[in-house]
Parts: sequence; structure tokens; C-alpha cells
Amino acid sequence: MSLTAKRVSELATHVAGRVLGDGDVSIFRVAGLDSAGEGEIAYVEEERLFADASKTRASCVITPVGADVRVPCRIEVKNPKLAFALMAEVLHPPKQRRPETHHTAVIAPDAKIGDAVFIGAFVCIGENAIVGNRTQIRAGAKIGDHVRIGNDCVIHPNVFVEDGVSIGNGVILHAGVVIGADGFGYVRGEMGYHKFPQIGTVVIEDDVELGANTCVDRAALGRTRIGRGTKLDNMVHVGHNCDIGERVVIAAQTGISGSVTIEDDCVIGGQVGFGDHIRVQSGAIIGSKAGILPGKIVRPGVWWGIPIQPLDEYKRLNAHISRLPHVRQELKELTERVKMLENELRQNEE
Amino acid sequence: MSLTAKRVSELATHVAGRVLGDGDVSIFRVAGLDSAGEGEIAYVEEERLFADASKTRASCVITPVGADVRVPCRIEVKNPKLAFALMAEVLHPPKQRRPETHHTAVIAPDAKIGDAVFIGAFVCIGENAIVGNRTQIRAGAKIGDHVRIGNDCVIHPNVFVEDGVSIGNGVILHAGVVIGADGFGYVRGEMGYHKFPQIGTVVIEDDVELGANTCVDRAALGRTRIGRGTKLDNMVHVGHNCDIGERVVIAAQTGISGSVTIEDDCVIGGQVGFGDHIRVQSGAIIGSKAGILPGKIVRPGVWWGIPIQPLDEYKRLNAHISRLPHVRQELKELTERVKMLENELRQNEE
Amino acid sequence: MSLTAKRVSELATHVAGRVLGDGDVSIFRVAGLDSAGEGEIAYVEEERLFADASKTRASCVITPVGADVRVPCRIEVKNPKLAFALMAEVLHPPKQRRPETHHTAVIAPDAKIGDAVFIGAFVCIGENAIVGNRTQIRAGAKIGDHVRIGNDCVIHPNVFVEDGVSIGNGVILHAGVVIGADGFGYVRGEMGYHKFPQIGTVVIEDDVELGANTCVDRAALGRTRIGRGTKLDNMVHVGHNCDIGERVVIAAQTGISGSVTIEDDCVIGGQVGFGDHIRVQSGAIIGSKAGILPGKIVRPGVWWGIPIQPLDEYKRLNAHISRLPHVRQELKELTERVKMLENELRQNEE
Repeated sequence: MSLTAKRVSELATHVAGRVLGDGDVSIFRVAGLDSAGEGEIAYVEEERLFADASKTRASCVITPVGADVRVPCRIEVKNPKLAFALMAEVLHPPKQRRPETHHTAVIAPDAKIGDAVFIGAFVCIGENAIVGNRTQIRAGAKIGDHVRIGNDCVIHPNVFVEDGVSIGNGVILHAGVVIGADGFGYVRGEMGYHKFPQIGTVVIEDDVELGANTCVDRAALGRTRIGRGTKLDNMVHVGHNCDIGERVVIAAQTGISGSVTIEDDCVIGGQVGFGDHIRVQSGAIIGSKAGILPGKIVRPGVWWGIPIQPLDEYKRLNAHISRLPHVRQELKELTERVKMLENELRQNEE
Repeated sequence: MSLTAKRVSELATHVAGRVLGDGDVSIFRVAGLDSAGEGEIAYVEEERLFADASKTRASCVITPVGADVRVPCRIEVKNPKLAFALMAEVLHPPKQRRPETHHTAVIAPDAKIGDAVFIGAFVCIGENAIVGNRTQIRAGAKIGDHVRIGNDCVIHPNVFVEDGVSIGNGVILHAGVVIGADGFGYVRGEMGYHKFPQIGTVVIEDDVELGANTCVDRAALGRTRIGRGTKLDNMVHVGHNCDIGERVVIAAQTGISGSVTIEDDCVIGGQVGFGDHIRVQSGAIIGSKAGILPGKIVRPGVWWGIPIQPLDEYKRLNAHISRLPHVRQELKELTERVKMLENELRQNEE
Repeated sequence: MSLTAKRVSELATHVAGRVLGDGDVSIFRVAGLDSAGEGEIAYVEEERLFADASKTRASCVITPVGADVRVPCRIEVKNPKLAFALMAEVLHPPKQRRPETHHTAVIAPDAKIGDAVFIGAFVCIGENAIVGNRTQIRAGAKIGDHVRIGNDCVIHPNVFVEDGVSIGNGVILHAGVVIGADGFGYVRGEMGYHKFPQIGTVVIEDDVELGANTCVDRAALGRTRIGRGTKLDNMVHVGHNCDIGERVVIAAQTGISGSVTIEDDCVIGGQVGFGDHIRVQSGAIIGSKAGILPGKIVRPGVWWGIPIQPLDEYKRLNAHISRLPHVRQELKELTERVKMLENELRQNEE
């Protein structure tokens, strides 16, 4: 991990914050409020934690503007957590590997490799592939033929990128990611299944990050797309011909069937399941473990459950379900009262 | 991607179709109706799309018999989608890699390697392993000792096949597949867990395809089996001692506990969870995200939900649940009416 | 697979059992009751299987004390399944690979490698890494800088262990495991998402086993921990900063969000989903496919459903739900009776 010291005043400038205290203090690392010590900067956002924050041993604390946090040195900003993340980018830049091509790497003679590229041991790079400047391709990654990878990417160990896939700038692919394997499509014939052609491609746009062991299948025909700035967690499945927009966040183990469109700025929980041909409109939020039926259009709002419902409906129905024993009891009592009424009426008549 | 031109008449013959138009037109690729252009063939199945199909710029369209699709050249068949898939097999055969063994591959001296085999960079093949003719083992795949792999298989990059596993002909293992890792079985002792022996094997029959990062565990004792022509999507988990029949289709991220039997011709959705010792009878269809309790026998039919129910029961219960607020309202109103009756009766009596 | 013959008497001594029959019989393998033959030992636990067990062709059967199993040779013990597992450890020890370092392995000059270590082909070991005695690092595994691995571990093919991770003694990492990839944490800025720092580490304690393609993310700040003797199945996701205790068992495809604590001796089913900041108290059992809301404290007991409920409540509610059609029917009939009462009363009044 890098140790690039910065002065508090430099860090404050970087996030447009205001220093209250000694701006010359040196900061080496970000840390949590509890564990932080000398040379470390922490942050606090919620008022209920201000008293605790006042006891921290961090050399500096990032706080909301006007926060009652009593420490010798703090930086006031509008969004402390964001400022903390931005400072971490400065103090802990992604590991820079010395540009080199390991002698064991197998690179096609006609592959075009940019400047200052790191290529680790046992890497393969296929025919006519293009790798941009400052990109790191770590040990054991396999890059197919005709693949294009942009600048400043990090391809972690044992990733596989199949032939013809296109990857933008600043993309991070964590270990074990598979991009461009055949989509799952078959046509039943008399003797069994025939593969529906899986001859399309995958486009991963700039600043995408894919978690470990995540799989993005190639399109049957056309392309599968992951839009700019979108982040996928570990073991997410993206089927053939999906179109995932920009700045979408998808948590771990979610599965997306073929031909699903997720528009910009959606947030998808973990272990969600999408049937095929769904369209999720921009800004929708889908809770973890939700299930969405094929062909559904999901409007903006917060959605939950199997099949998905608006969150407040889901909660109301769940409340109704939990009151079911009570409903049965009420019904039983009411039946008893009706029986008494019937008896009474019968007696009156006699 | 290959470019093997075929004439329309040749393609029609291949699928037993009838040409209406110029059979000498050259076709290079399959494509979607919308995007297809010169030299490409598309298909249409549903009547509601016939008008659109008439506007395609594809050089040929595959249609149902007697379809009102007005294009200069079309092929009539009984099953257009199947014909399209069969033509794609001809026009886009799986990538044929030049038979060679990369100089970096590490192959046990007593391994038996067939004819016209491709072995990529950084491949390992263990002692006494057998690899059939025309099989491709791509970069970084690791094949254990005593493994048997048939003819015409494609083992994609970074696959791992553990010792003793048997793989048939025409099998496709996508990147990151793991076959033959220990099953998950422990016995609790006083100090913690002891491994239940995991010393069985795995048999993958002919024409099986396993999606990226899918895992098939070895049997504890005996064998785990994936039957002929069965297709698994990405990140499916198959536990120890499972017996999956022929022509079974299983969508992504489904998990199958130990000792589950799935008979021939079943269709299983994505993210389904199976408890152990379940038997799914031939022809059953299980919807995505379903959950099946251990030991259950699943009869033919369509099943849904957690725990699974016949689809129509599931729908009926879901309708009942969504009417719960209404039921409570009815109950409330009825209680009010009973109260009025009681009051009235009391007044009458006074 | 090894063939280390033991005499029945030796095996009995190993598990503190009593031999009934010829203690000199040689045993080569464990096997199932049905398939076992000469030289093999099987076990039986349930009384209903005693008659079947009497027909086995196994050379020896492990039975409960006093069991009516009529075979020429058996061993009586308190816990036959545990005894069977302990004997399997003796008869089928994990494959011992001849200590060697494959000439293709790339090992940093300052890495410290213990005695009798096996290092397979295409392995990478990073700067300043430490590997304990008798540990096996199989083909294609990648070990980062500053990683510590204890004694007697087995790191299967294509595993990736990121920089700085610490692994205890006797740990088994199955193929495709990824330890120490960045956690999934972002802060939304005006232009999109910024990475929340992911600069913590992962600690895997002694005797942990992780299934194929399982992922354990590094902590944002601090550490992610998997406690001693804990077993995870295939494709489990463990998020950043989780603290999993000792002797915890987690079945396949379960996903654990960030900052979840699971205390000692919990049992977690497959495909369970955990929101963040949950605490599961020691001894809790959570059924497969359960979903747990963020921040929840799960007390000891058996839990089920989405969101989780105590198992008996879950069953009761499910019974209520399945009776819903009946409730509606009752309500309808009661409404009819009330209407008749109203009519009658009205007639009486007239």
C-alpha cells in the first residue's frame, strides 16, 4: 500500500473544504474513526457520532460544515464521505506496477500494446488485440483475438476476455471475470438442443468496474453493453444482449437474463433475478432478492419482492400477511356472533 | 468469425426448406431482422412481425410455410428458428484452432493426446490423462491426472478439471468452469468438522455445455453425472452425487444440493434452489427463483414459488394474497353489520 | 487415489470402536453400503437400514453399539458416520504431491518458502510472501505480495490471493477462489461514483475450507475474517469487513453483504442473502434462500423465509396463506348469513 503523505491543507483544497486547525499536519492514510491514529484522517457524517468523533486520535477529521466536533484539526465539507473517498484516491492510488512485459507472457506479434503497460506472467494476448496506455494486465489473464482494451485499465489475475470484446478506459475487471462467453440460447430439435448462434459481441464502456468471478455473455446477434461508470459486484451474471446503462450499481450474485435493458442511474440489490426482455427505467431502485417477470417494464421508484411490487405495497401486503392469524381469529369470533344472532332470532320466532 | 459463404439453395437443402426467389444468392452470415443487410439471412416466426419482415434488407428471410412475407428471397420451413440455428452452425462453425501444442504447455509424458488437438499456452495435462481427437484445450486450462476427455470438445481458458473426471464427446466447458472439486460434506465431531470423504468422481456425457464459472462437484462416494445433451448456464452449482439426466436445461445461478436427481428433458429456471435428495421427474418445468425442500419428488408439470407449488395454484394463492386488504375491509364491514344487528335485536328485546 | 491398506483392528482403535469379527481383515477403501465389496468398509446409522446392511458385501461395517446388523465383521462405535469420516482420513489422505517447485513457477526472490512445499506449473508468488511447510500451491494459482500462507494448506488451481492477505494452517482453497479483491463500496458524486477506499485486508484462520469460485473481499478499512474451522461451499460471496466466526458452515451461493458478523457455530443454508451490518448470534441456523434485512440481529434458533422469521412462525404463516381460499369462502358464506339475518329482521319489523 502506498504512503504518499499530503498536508491537511492540500487535502482540503482537493475537496474544496475549509481547514479548522493546523493545515501543515501530514496525513499518510485514511482510516476509520475508531482505529485512526497519528498521520491518519477519518470522517464523520452523522450528528449522533459527533461526540465519539471528538475522542478520535486521528490527526484530522472530515466533518459536515458547522459540526460540533472538538478536535485539534478538522476539514469542513458538504459531503464528508465523498471527500474521504476523494482523499483516499490521492493517498492510496491504485497500485502502480512498473511498466514491463513479463518474459513468460505470450503476445501475438500483431497485437498493439500501448505505452507504460504492465503485462504479468502467463498472460496471453491474442491476434490483432489492442491494449491502451498505462493499462495493467495481471498474471494469468487471457485476452482473446481482436479485443480492444482502453487506457488505464486494471485487468486482475485469471480474467478471461473472449475474442472481439471492446473495453473502454479506466475499466477494472476483478479476478476471475469472464467477458464474452457464449450466451445461453438453444432451439429444441427432434434429437435435442441446437445452439442459437452466439456471434455478437460485448462492449464495456469507460470507468466500469466488475467484481470477482462476474460473467458478461456476448450477444447472440448484436452486442451486450455495460454503460459508462457502471459498477457490478462479485458473481453477477449478465446474459446475452443486455443493455446496462450508465452509473448503474448492481450488487453481488444478481442474475440478468437475455435482452434486459437497465437504463441509467438504476440501483439493483444483490441476488435479484431478471427474466428476459425486461426494461428497467432510469432511476429505479430494486431491492435485494427481488424477482422480475419476463417482459416487465419497471418504472422509476423503489421495488421489492417476488414478483416485484412498489416497496410500500410490498410492506402493506407483508403486514396483512403477518396479521393473517388475527384475521382468522376475527372471522371465527364473528361467525360465533352470527350463530348467536341466528339462534336468538329463531327463539324469538318460536 | 468465419466467413463461409453458402448459396440460399444450399442452406435451404440443409434444413429441408423450400426457396421462393433466387437460390443462387450468396449468404455470409446470420443476422437479426432489423440489422440484417446484404449477404445476411434472418428469420421471422410470429405473424405479427410479417409486415416488419417485409421491410428487412436481409438477402434472404426464413419464414413459416405460407407466410405473407414480401421479400425477393425467402426460405419456407416448418420451424424457422430451428432452421436459423442450423444454418448458423454451417455459416459460423465454432472457431477451429490450428492443431498445435503450445510450447509452454506442461503435459505429462504418459498422457495420451489424440489427433488434430489444440493445446494452448499455459495448459497443464496430468498423468495418464486422455484427450480425444480435434479437442481444443485453451490457454490456462488445467486437466488433472487420469482425466478422460472425448473428441471434439472445447475447453475454454482457465477451466479446471480435477483428477479422475470423465468427459464425453462434443462437450463445451466455458471459461472458469470447475469440475470435480470436493463436495460439501462434513461430520461434526467434538472439536469441529471432519470432512466426509469426497472420493467419488464426475461423469460429463456427450454434447453437454457448461456456462462460465459453473461448478460440478465430485461425488462423495460413487459419481456425479451430467447427462447427454444437457445445457447449464453460467455459475450453476451442482453438488456431490447429483444425477442430471439428458437434454436438461438449467439457467444461471441455480444451485443443486447433494444427491439430487433431475430426470431427462426437464427445464429449470435461474436462481432455483434445490435441497438435497430431491427427484425431479422427466419433463418437469421449474420456474426461476423457485425453492424445493429436501427429499421432495417433483412430478411432471410446471412448478413455481418457495416452496414450489403447481403454477396455477401459485397464481391463485398470489391473487388471494393481493386481495388481502380487500378481505380485511370486507371483514370490518361485516363486523359493523353484525354489531348493528346485535344492537337492533337488543332494542327489539327491550 | 491412495491405497493404504489398514487392518480392521487398526481402524477400530483409531475411532475407539469395538471389533466384532476378524480384526485382521484388510481394508483399502471406504464405500457406500450398496456398492461396497471386498476390502471396503461401509457404515450404517439408522435402524431401518440394518436389514439392508446385513446384505452388504463390504468386508466390514461400522454400526451403532448393539445394532442388529448380521455381518461377519463389524465395528461398533457411538457415531458411525463420524467414525467413517475419520477412517476415510486415514485410508484416503489428501493427495500428497512430491515436494518440488515447477520450473515454470515465478517466485519473487524475497518470498520465503517453507519445507516440503509443492509449487505447481504457472504459479506466481509475490514479493515478501511467506508459504508454510508442506503447503501445496497447485498449477496456475496466483499469490500476491506480502501474503502469508501457513503450513499444510492446499491451494487448488487458478486460485487468486491478493496482496497482504493472511491464511492460517490447514486451509483448503478450491479452484477459482478469489480472496482479497476490492469490496463493493462507492460514494456518489456529481459525475458518478467514486470508489470508497478498499485498503483493508483479509484473515483466513486455520482449518478453513472455501468452495470453488467463492469470493472473500478485502475490508474497506480494517479486515475481513473467516474464523477457524469454518467451511464455505461453492460460489459464496463474503463482502468487505465481514467477521465470520469459528466452525460456521455456509452452503453454496449464499451472499453476505459488507460488515456482517456471524458468530461461532452458526449453520447457514444455500442462496441465503444478508443485508449489511447484520449480526447472527452464536448457534443460529438460517434456512436456505432466506433473506435478512440490513442491521438485523439474529438470535439463536432456526430461521426461515424472506424476511426471516422463526421457523415455526414461518410454517404457521404459510399454513395460513395456503388456507386463504378457504377464508374467503368462509367470509362469503358468513356475509350471506348476515344478509339473511338482516332481511329476516327487516321482515319482522314490518
